[in-house]
Amino acid sequence: MPSADPGQPCAAVRRGRPRSEAAEQAIFAAVEELMAGGTALSEVTIEGIATAAGVGKATIYRRWPNKEALLVDVVSRLEVPMPEPSGAARDDLIAMIDHVRRRGLAKRTRWVLKAALGQMQTLPELAAAYRERVIKPRREAGLCLIRQAVAEGVIRDDVDLDLLGDLLMGPILYRSILWDDSDLEDPQLARKMVDALLDGLAPR
Amino acid sequence: MPSADPGQPCAAVRRGRPRSEAAEQAIFAAVEELMAGGTALSEVTIEGIATAAGVGKATIYRRWPNKEALLVDVVSRLEVPMPEPSGAARDDLIAMIDHVRRRGLAKRTRWVLKAALGQMQTLPELAAAYRERVIKPRREAGLCLIRQAVAEGVIRDDVDLDLLGDLLMGPILYRSILWDDSDLEDPQLARKMVDALLDGLAPR
Repeated sequence: MPSADPGQPCAAVRRGRPRSEAAEQAIFAAVEELMAGGTALSEVTIEGIATAAGVGKATIYRRWPNKEALLVDVVSRLEVPMPEPSGAARDDLIAMIDHVRRRGLAKRTRWVLKAALGQMQTLPELAAAYRERVIKPRREAGLCLIRQAVAEGVIRDDVDLDLLGDLLMGPILYRSILWDDSDLEDPQLARKMVDALLDGLAPR
Repeated sequence: MPSADPGQPCAAVRRGRPRSEAAEQAIFAAVEELMAGGTALSEVTIEGIATAAGVGKATIYRRWPNKEALLVDVVSRLEVPMPEPSGAARDDLIAMIDHVRRRGLAKRTRWVLKAALGQMQTLPELAAAYRERVIKPRREAGLCLIRQAVAEGVIRDDVDLDLLGDLLMGPILYRSILWDDSDLEDPQLARKMVDALLDGLAPR
């Protein structure tokens, strides 16, 4: 387990490409439409995207070297920026979980993410880029908050850090990505999860 | 929350179709191959399956009325039977989680499940049948074990049953379905999860 460094504040995770104009929006919307509609990613072509977006192929190639790079951006931008850590470990854990809950409220986002996750084995470059650019920074931000919570005495120090990460984030990721009909409406859900996880499921 | 009925033992969940001969095995293998290879489910045809499996279309139609019914069987049979409950609540919770862990050890199973989950929005009949035939009985079996654990005093009675279900099953489903590279090798993983969840993540 990496050592806790309570002196180093955890960084918020921001989108890599905030800038976006009309053509780019149309391209993103076209790919999302294709993905949510069930088109296999392996069958998506730059030509098909250009047609659906009403732009020329050159407009796409000016921005992205290939399909995989574009797909990574499509999936990355579904991530809303994570909240700036407050420094209070329990609140920050709740905010991190609530952030995933709020993202999951958009059904279209869930569909596109599920379609992407379900097909990444066919596009190893996309899978690698997604892991490097989306999963890894977010996982590290989450583990940083957990290490801080351990350092503050909010979380016990005798449980493996990766296991802590899965116990804290697994339930909300399961509810928000895997199942379409799960309930994410309750604004108190993240707090209830953290309360139950910290206090334990056994009677006291 | 449904009332706990400790007098009623929780049933094990078994496969619906244990019988299977060579043609059926070839058909299942062909569909799995197509799915793991990234073919969109909406583009899978009975004709394509017949060709890949080396059987006639009639051989398929004798067994399944349509593509959706076949796909449900393909996905259902990836589920290994759940262990028979022992009646000891903590052991049964561990066994339920370990059962998901063991299923996840087969990479191909993970891929086919992810491909199916990622494309179910394009096949509403498959999604409905999967929910009814796979998710619902398993979820009910899980909730039955949890209710029994509450009745035995192993789990507290003041947390919503659905939330308990997600806290207990979310981490292993997240680890075994969502990510390809997650670690499922540790035979003690399920026990560690249940220990941490019951005892709580806060220091005592």
